[in-house]
Amino acid sequence: MSVFERLESNVRSYCRTWPAVFDCAQGARLTDENGRSYLDFFAGAGSLNYGHNNPVLKRALIEYIERDGITHGLDMATTAKRAFLETFEDVVLRPRDLPYKVMFPGPTGTNAVEAALKLARKVKGRECVVSFTNSFHGMSLGALAVTGNAFKRAGAGIPLVHGAPMPFDHYFDDTIPDFLWFERLLEDRGSGLDVPAAVIVETVQGEGGVNVARAEWLRALRDLCRRYDILLIVDDIQMGCGRTGGFFSFEAAGIVPDIVTVSKSISGYGLPMSLCLFRTGLDIWQPGEHNGTFRGNNPAFVTATAALSAYWTDDRMEKQTRTHGERVEEFLTGLDETAAGNAKARGRGLVWGLEFADDTRAAKVCSRAFALGLLLETSGTRSEVVKLLPPLTISPDELGEGLDILGRAVDETR
Amino acid sequence: MSVFERLESNVRSYCRTWPAVFDCAQGARLTDENGRSYLDFFAGAGSLNYGHNNPVLKRALIEYIERDGITHGLDMATTAKRAFLETFEDVVLRPRDLPYKVMFPGPTGTNAVEAALKLARKVKGRECVVSFTNSFHGMSLGALAVTGNAFKRAGAGIPLVHGAPMPFDHYFDDTIPDFLWFERLLEDRGSGLDVPAAVIVETVQGEGGVNVARAEWLRALRDLCRRYDILLIVDDIQMGCGRTGGFFSFEAAGIVPDIVTVSKSISGYGLPMSLCLFRTGLDIWQPGEHNGTFRGNNPAFVTATAALSAYWTDDRMEKQTRTHGERVEEFLTGLDETAAGNAKARGRGLVWGLEFADDTRAAKVCSRAFALGLLLETSGTRSEVVKLLPPLTISPDELGEGLDILGRAVDETR
Amino acid sequence: MSVFERLESNVRSYCRTWPAVFDCAQGARLTDENGRSYLDFFAGAGSLNYGHNNPVLKRALIEYIERDGITHGLDMATTAKRAFLETFEDVVLRPRDLPYKVMFPGPTGTNAVEAALKLARKVKGRECVVSFTNSFHGMSLGALAVTGNAFKRAGAGIPLVHGAPMPFDHYFDDTIPDFLWFERLLEDRGSGLDVPAAVIVETVQGEGGVNVARAEWLRALRDLCRRYDILLIVDDIQMGCGRTGGFFSFEAAGIVPDIVTVSKSISGYGLPMSLCLFRTGLDIWQPGEHNGTFRGNNPAFVTATAALSAYWTDDRMEKQTRTHGERVEEFLTGLDETAAGNAKARGRGLVWGLEFADDTRAAKVCSRAFALGLLLETSGTRSEVVKLLPPLTISPDELGEGLDILGRAVDETR
Amino acid sequence: MSVFERLESNVRSYCRTWPAVFDCAQGARLTDENGRSYLDFFAGAGSLNYGHNNPVLKRALIEYIERDGITHGLDMATTAKRAFLETFEDVVLRPRDLPYKVMFPGPTGTNAVEAALKLARKVKGRECVVSFTNSFHGMSLGALAVTGNAFKRAGAGIPLVHGAPMPFDHYFDDTIPDFLWFERLLEDRGSGLDVPAAVIVETVQGEGGVNVARAEWLRALRDLCRRYDILLIVDDIQMGCGRTGGFFSFEAAGIVPDIVTVSKSISGYGLPMSLCLFRTGLDIWQPGEHNGTFRGNNPAFVTATAALSAYWTDDRMEKQTRTHGERVEEFLTGLDETAAGNAKARGRGLVWGLEFADDTRAAKVCSRAFALGLLLETSGTRSEVVKLLPPLTISPDELGEGLDILGRAVDETR
Repeated sequence: MSVFERLESNVRSYCRTWPAVFDCAQGARLTDENGRSYLDFFAGAGSLNYGHNNPVLKRALIEYIERDGITHGLDMATTAKRAFLETFEDVVLRPRDLPYKVMFPGPTGTNAVEAALKLARKVKGRECVVSFTNSFHGMSLGALAVTGNAFKRAGAGIPLVHGAPMPFDHYFDDTIPDFLWFERLLEDRGSGLDVPAAVIVETVQGEGGVNVARAEWLRALRDLCRRYDILLIVDDIQMGCGRTGGFFSFEAAGIVPDIVTVSKSISGYGLPMSLCLFRTGLDIWQPGEHNGTFRGNNPAFVTATAALSAYWTDDRMEKQTRTHGERVEEFLTGLDETAAGNAKARGRGLVWGLEFADDTRAAKVCSRAFALGLLLETSGTRSEVVKLLPPLTISPDELGEGLDILGRAVDETR
Repeated sequence: MSVFERLESNVRSYCRTWPAVFDCAQGARLTDENGRSYLDFFAGAGSLNYGHNNPVLKRALIEYIERDGITHGLDMATTAKRAFLETFEDVVLRPRDLPYKVMFPGPTGTNAVEAALKLARKVKGRECVVSFTNSFHGMSLGALAVTGNAFKRAGAGIPLVHGAPMPFDHYFDDTIPDFLWFERLLEDRGSGLDVPAAVIVETVQGEGGVNVARAEWLRALRDLCRRYDILLIVDDIQMGCGRTGGFFSFEAAGIVPDIVTVSKSISGYGLPMSLCLFRTGLDIWQPGEHNGTFRGNNPAFVTATAALSAYWTDDRMEKQTRTHGERVEEFLTGLDETAAGNAKARGRGLVWGLEFADDTRAAKVCSRAFALGLLLETSGTRSEVVKLLPPLTISPDELGEGLDILGRAVDETR
Repeated sequence: MSVFERLESNVRSYCRTWPAVFDCAQGARLTDENGRSYLDFFAGAGSLNYGHNNPVLKRALIEYIERDGITHGLDMATTAKRAFLETFEDVVLRPRDLPYKVMFPGPTGTNAVEAALKLARKVKGRECVVSFTNSFHGMSLGALAVTGNAFKRAGAGIPLVHGAPMPFDHYFDDTIPDFLWFERLLEDRGSGLDVPAAVIVETVQGEGGVNVARAEWLRALRDLCRRYDILLIVDDIQMGCGRTGGFFSFEAAGIVPDIVTVSKSISGYGLPMSLCLFRTGLDIWQPGEHNGTFRGNNPAFVTATAALSAYWTDDRMEKQTRTHGERVEEFLTGLDETAAGNAKARGRGLVWGLEFADDTRAAKVCSRAFALGLLLETSGTRSEVVKLLPPLTISPDELGEGLDILGRAVDETR
Repeated sequence: MSVFERLESNVRSYCRTWPAVFDCAQGARLTDENGRSYLDFFAGAGSLNYGHNNPVLKRALIEYIERDGITHGLDMATTAKRAFLETFEDVVLRPRDLPYKVMFPGPTGTNAVEAALKLARKVKGRECVVSFTNSFHGMSLGALAVTGNAFKRAGAGIPLVHGAPMPFDHYFDDTIPDFLWFERLLEDRGSGLDVPAAVIVETVQGEGGVNVARAEWLRALRDLCRRYDILLIVDDIQMGCGRTGGFFSFEAAGIVPDIVTVSKSISGYGLPMSLCLFRTGLDIWQPGEHNGTFRGNNPAFVTATAALSAYWTDDRMEKQTRTHGERVEEFLTGLDETAAGNAKARGRGLVWGLEFADDTRAAKVCSRAFALGLLLETSGTRSEVVKLLPPLTISPDELGEGLDILGRAVDETR
């Protein structure tokens, strides 16, 4: 019995799907301890948008470590943090005219969501936060309470309260006007819905099954929040950092959220880092009111700065993501209907899902793809969707190779 | 106005105490961007027990990055993780006969605490968790609910429930028998205290003011939990990894907690990493029931393995910590009573606190020490305690130098 | 200043609407201390279905008091309680084939709702209870949490949790399929709705604006609860005891709820009394697990028994209620459209509402009606509905007289 | 099988202790359907301080019913309510200089407690309410959350939150200074206790085992609440209305609570009625913010007025209660030590408890007393206390007779 089986908790999960011991990685490829190579259409669940061990970032990282740059900085001022803040301001915020303060809430996505929820409740003096069906925001109690998945929720061991779910876009296959239920509850003071402090939303629900909100739905949500004095939080942890094309996933809709959570690919190198951004006027935090040991993960600031400088000073990345995405879409919609069992494709930028009518099929496809050398994850409550999340920096050849394998896996599991 | 003031949230805190922009660091010293050097009696709030950028760990880290070892691994099996698990088993668990499974709950302390609380509630089917006066366990909602500090609690924006505080050791200056109140509530089924799923405790409360629990108090707590079928969680995030002498802070008391949280110095290099350890029989997690993007921060596994191998295969580290600690104790208790305003010293291993009768004095001492080139933090609810937390690997000379500065700072602030 | 203004809390409400000091009452008429008489279309908010001081019940009550029958009995066995239970079984339960145990949960409606919710949660081991938009179930914390009205909810002083509102019948003017949202949330394990222990519903929402659920909607709700293993609680506090025709308001739909709350008119005389009925198999209460000082209000048992014997051993009461109701409906729908500002009438049995487009109109109508000698209450979140709730035993002449006054009040307020 | 066993819920309790079917009652005696007479040392759990069917009140009640006085009045102004308010002001409030507004919160004790808690939380804008070990305040969710009994709490079916228990007087047999723990938690902003909105206390805990708080303890509590800006709620439901001597049980301590709940014997006749009294400045209720169907139980106002007029315009009642109490005390302390197994007596006014060392003994004593014709209840979490609660109006002969029976029951159960 391996040490993983003997010593590691039953909670481990990906290692069951992909029974290999990985050793090293480069770009869109991982290699296991036996030297076998795998193409990666998973990208650290969206944390490796620039590929594994991206050489540009790697160089900056090693240089920083070599010269004994500050590693652990809490929320002390450091030269690495300053470089990041200035670059983030120059490359990301200012060009998009985004009026945000930057908070380092701790280096994980759920830390960022907790901070966002705390701030929203403090600002508005209300407890309820609205989330959406099939949302995923994290595993600590605050984030879990606005997460849809019943299996994850049951892990809390206490009732999860102060949240209320609303239907995400397309939840009723577009037969029901958007926000009919939500707005009716808000305008009816006898509805039983306590006025929420905030709404938290993903523009594309990655864990929830690659559910894509339309731009007009997001705009209507932005408008509804404004009219009812509710803060809009966009959780851009998985869909930000270029995954859908623009740096933030909400840019395409032309909206400005009140609060934004960013993590996963923000460090660019897979290093733990996250941000909570919010309108300047919302910055009512007292010094030290929220803290955390690893807020100042300076090596991550270094790679984050390098990633912004390398990829976001012009629009090449965004264009390439679109081009890649179109190719994926073409491939998925071109799948043989019989072979794919009428699977439905949906996505935006370079995140795509293929939903099978038969709930067991997606797992079979991923399993077969793994055997063929491709890492692919399922998503959705019933694991009914194959999720495609290749590095944004993948080469056209590798993208083609991966799609071919996926095609074979679909074909061989029918 | 600097980018920190302009762009970073008001929540930032340490950068206000130490108004410098730090650039690099080595061992027990940091250097700011102007080349000024500071001795470090803070050690990343306990995350840098082996000093800044420890050369042994640094070599391993750079080597790993150079060879493109897996950086981001979720909970996939990797060679780096295997090496860590095997080393942790060989060097830490087996020699101490600790019957634990290892969970990677996400790389921060609060992630580990959230996982511990979730598991305890799941196992026992109860909601209440008992914590202690002046406890500190983290900033996400689950951890915050068992944290004592009213200022931090108010940040939640919702009422924090399912927790109940009990008096920590010495809370009544030893005039009251230990656990009198707690046990009376448990044995009286009319007391109004719902039987707790777990008790969560720090053996030394770092943030709470360097409050040290006696070994016999911890043993009595262990016994009480056993008698009432309550799980005992030791939060060893700040006090573990050798801070008090032994690897775990509870070893000296001869107790075996049911659940242990470990973070801060576990990676050895200040990289985000945490563990939740629990008795094998408690491992009722379903695969994937708790997850998180940065659970598999493999560079941290690499430095963690190197740290365990370099420092914990014999008892030199433990002995040195004791020696350093005795020297600190001697110094603190030898402070001129008039100069120090009858400040009281307390501590264990290499964590020490100096509590001033005048609540404003500790901040003045730290501020003066900073001016003299020493980083020192206050702790306690009223910031009434100067906390000494030097790297365990500090040299005798540096330790002496730091104590001298502290002596001057005390003297110059009377 | 009167003693009411000087000494009674600001919370008092009806005495503001009807500024008179009432002294005595008989049937459908009250008389104030100046001898002025008022016709009563309010009936103690549904507590006086048999009219004020009904002579049949009055005789039984005085007789019982005269002979020193037990007044206060907690849950002791008494001859008065036995008579009630036997009569309730013979006259109500057995003819309708209702398989219920009877609990005396305390003499108010909110006591009954609290007991129902406690039992449902105990039985199912779940916390969430679904209620409906514009529901009203009571003012104690458990009942308030499933009540829709935001103004009432705010009185709690704590966040009200463990409830989730769903759309009542006609909430979207029948443009949306019934239970579309509710069932979708239940079947989608990623929806974020925790599986509820129970659904609590009024068949006609009295306080919520006289909203009438269709029989087929109630049947579909019954069916949905069965399919998802959720208990169905009908709160028949205001609509039971013959108000809609049959003894229970759910009879017409042909459904059998799992739990039923009964209060208001159950004693028949306006004396505090309530029941919680539930399927035999749900009776998992431990002796004394729920208690209350006034559960055994024996004078109320006496009048309740007399009321059942006098009015429910044949179908005359039910028929008369229907006849009265048809007359009210005819009158309301025949109101001059211009005069009534296109007010909409709705109701069932002898509970009717007249909703005005102009929110301020209903209060004006009630105020004018009072000046003309008729007690009429508004209902609905915005007090936009005039509610007609005459005693069921009202004479045809009095009913006509009241409707005439209402007609004048409508006419004179346009 | 009787209708009680067949039809009534398992939750029934007293009818198991006293297996008789009671029919009528007068003064301190009940008669069952077989004509057997029982002396009553239970008094409706404190609801029958003036005895069963007190002739003075009975006359007023029948007169009122005969003349068709308003029975059910919600919160309408009535002549009966006015008479009560004026009498209550003249006889109770003014002579004691109590600056209270009067709220009719619904006719049960738990309604009054719910109203008190809601108001306290509204006024202070805080959620937490401190209660005491072995407290009993009611069965609806708000009241249950501040009740100590674990068995009753478990009935809630949800976690009970927003409450914190503190030690009642004598909880540590006077070895610990009063309020040591409570005040320490309040003054320590790191204690983990959220500042409470209110403290709720019984001066003598009836259900909790006849635990008597000393006057100086109550004064210290009053003082502590004032110093920390916490509202003091005295729950005088069981101990008010003369049970301990004065009309309110807190009078003897010379304190003025901010809020007082009154119920049980306030109507004097065992009819459901309750009051919530509070300082005028706390009356921030909006009209109708708290309501309830049976707030205006006018027959209860009539008997309440008659009781106040008959018994509280001079000090005879108070003196007689003291005299009776002294006799009971003398009897209990004079019990043969061997026979009584060193039972300990405690009490105040005419409420007394006899605590047996052997937990099973009290039930045996009560059971034997019942066989000998005396109703006696146990109290305390383990039912370890025999509780003596005779009507205040009991005759010296009947009191002697009851004590004799108790003596025999003790003797015959050793």
